[in-house]
Amino acid sequence: SWMVALSQGLGITMVILMGVWLNTYMGGFAWDGSGKEFNLHPLCMICGMVFLYGEAALVYRVFRQTEKLKAKIIHASLLLLAFIAIVVGLVAVFQFHHKMHITNMYSLHSWFGMITVLLFCLQFLLGFLSFLLPGARPSIRSFYLPLHQFFGGGILTLAVISVISGINEKLFFKYKGTGYSKLPASAVIANVCGLVTIGFVLTILYI
Amino acid sequence: SWMVALSQGLGITMVILMGVWLNTYMGGFAWDGSGKEFNLHPLCMICGMVFLYGEAALVYRVFRQTEKLKAKIIHASLLLLAFIAIVVGLVAVFQFHHKMHITNMYSLHSWFGMITVLLFCLQFLLGFLSFLLPGARPSIRSFYLPLHQFFGGGILTLAVISVISGINEKLFFKYKGTGYSKLPASAVIANVCGLVTIGFVLTILYI
Ligand code: HEM
Ligand code: HEM
Ligand code: HEM
Ligand code: HEM
Ligand SMILES: O=C1O[C@H]([C@@H](O)CO)C(O)=C1O
Repeated sequence: SWMVALSQGLGITMVILMGVWLNTYMGGFAWDGSGKEFNLHPLCMICGMVFLYGEAALVYRVFRQTEKLKAKIIHASLLLLAFIAIVVGLVAVFQFHHKMHITNMYSLHSWFGMITVLLFCLQFLLGFLSFLLPGARPSIRSFYLPLHQFFGGGILTLAVISVISGINEKLFFKYKGTGYSKLPASAVIANVCGLVTIGFVLTILYI
Repeated sequence: SWMVALSQGLGITMVILMGVWLNTYMGGFAWDGSGKEFNLHPLCMICGMVFLYGEAALVYRVFRQTEKLKAKIIHASLLLLAFIAIVVGLVAVFQFHHKMHITNMYSLHSWFGMITVLLFCLQFLLGFLSFLLPGARPSIRSFYLPLHQFFGGGILTLAVISVISGINEKLFFKYKGTGYSKLPASAVIANVCGLVTIGFVLTILYI
């Protein structure tokens, strides 16, 4: 349907805007503990925790004719990829903080972010145990399914909160004093990326 | 039910934490264009856009035996109070920016905040026209009701995004450099207020 097309357009735009912002305006990427390594944090988080996650949430609704087991394997594989991106994104910011001698886990952004990631891991484990392992009893599956769906949407919402607060604080860091308020191109791109992100998530939750 | 009790506990804790944070650690309140006037912004936004809004959303679900027209009037009155708080909260931050010669509407927080408030106003207008005016046709009511409910939850979610990004950026403003990362009492209180806020909203959306 056109809603699915819209979601895909928004999702790709979101990832491209984030990539262009970090690559062209924020110094690009590297794995050296510097600000370039930090840049992998927002990129990996938006790819894993929003884009791949959102695609995985769509699988059952878009491929309705597909065999159930096949759909499950696609769902779980996309989320496994998401998990890998998330781990890389977290290692990047923790290594950056370590090298710069900055304390970990102080900001409200990082608290929300960590809660989001922990709930994601729990959902992954429970989803795997209940739906993919052949041994799980049907009664467990039907008890857990509505919870899995409710938390599926909830975790995605928490991920948006993390993304928006993250972009917002990074722009305040980068443009100290009144720099952000002059809205240079870089700030506009990142702000628009934030708006596109909520658009993507809204279409996913709606479909 | 105990969920309603929990939501009330979280809601009151949220407002108290915000009040204590602003009053005891951020300089208190005044109406003079200074940082003390700014402090009315977070307080009014959390009272109007989250607490009163959340209470209004509960009305139909908690007072099920109440006459429908009575419930509608309570719902609409709470949202009118919310609207007044929101206007005061916005005037406070715009006057503060004017006095300090800071540009308006540059941050991602302010963009999300403004979208939230505009959608709130639209919802208020449409809700009033469709449900309270005696003239509205039943076909219009039944068409608009599911939309009103979907946007009701959506606007509350946008409000949380605005609150979390707002608390987060204010703490980075206040504790320049590495001050925030030392987690002084004020920062812990504000961070916890952010967590309690999402707790309040989750219980409201769940009930
Ligand atoms: C779902 C998405 C995200 C999650 C789960 C997340 C999670 C985290 C976590 C757990 C930390 C703490 C790292 C430490 O203390 O060593 C952190 C730090 C940080 N993140 Fe994110 N993040 C996300 C997205 C973003 C985005 C899109 C940006 C935008 C640039 C960003 C910017 C930052 C910054 C600047 C820090 C360091 C300062 C601080 O601790 O707040 N984050 N993030
Ligand atoms: C972090 C890991 C996971 C997340 C975030 C996640 C997320 C989601 C979301 C958002 C939905 C809702 C889709 C909808 O309502 O249409 C969903 C449904 C589902 N997920 Fe997962 N999931 C995870 C892991 C798994 C795993 C490992 C499995 C095992 C195959 C699984 C099996 C299912 C099933 C069977 C559904 C229900 C589809 C239906 O509506 O019939 N999930 N998941
Ligand atoms: C639903 C809740 C909220 C909404 C709708 C909202 C909306 C806004 C808007 C529209 C502005 C722009 C004002 C201007 O440019 O003159 C603004 C600024 C600001 N708000 Fe909020 N706000 C909310 C909650 C909060 C909270 C809880 C805080 C916490 C302290 C906060 C902190 C700030 C700060 C520091 C600014 C000035 C810097 C900036 O423009 O980002 N806000 N807010
Ligand atoms: C900014 C203004 C408004 C907001 C944010 C708002 C929000 C909400 C929310 C969140 C719900 C969902 C409650 C639920 O699902 O149980 C709701 C339901 C409703 N609202 Fe509003 N509302 C607004 C204005 C109005 C006005 C002015 C009226 C006129 C009386 C109205 C009438 C209703 C009705 C009839 C329902 C449906 C209750 C049901 O589930 O049967 N709303 N509103
Ligand atoms: O609370 C605030 O702090 C900044 C600025 O005054 C700090 O430099 C700003 O725009 C606010 O609204």
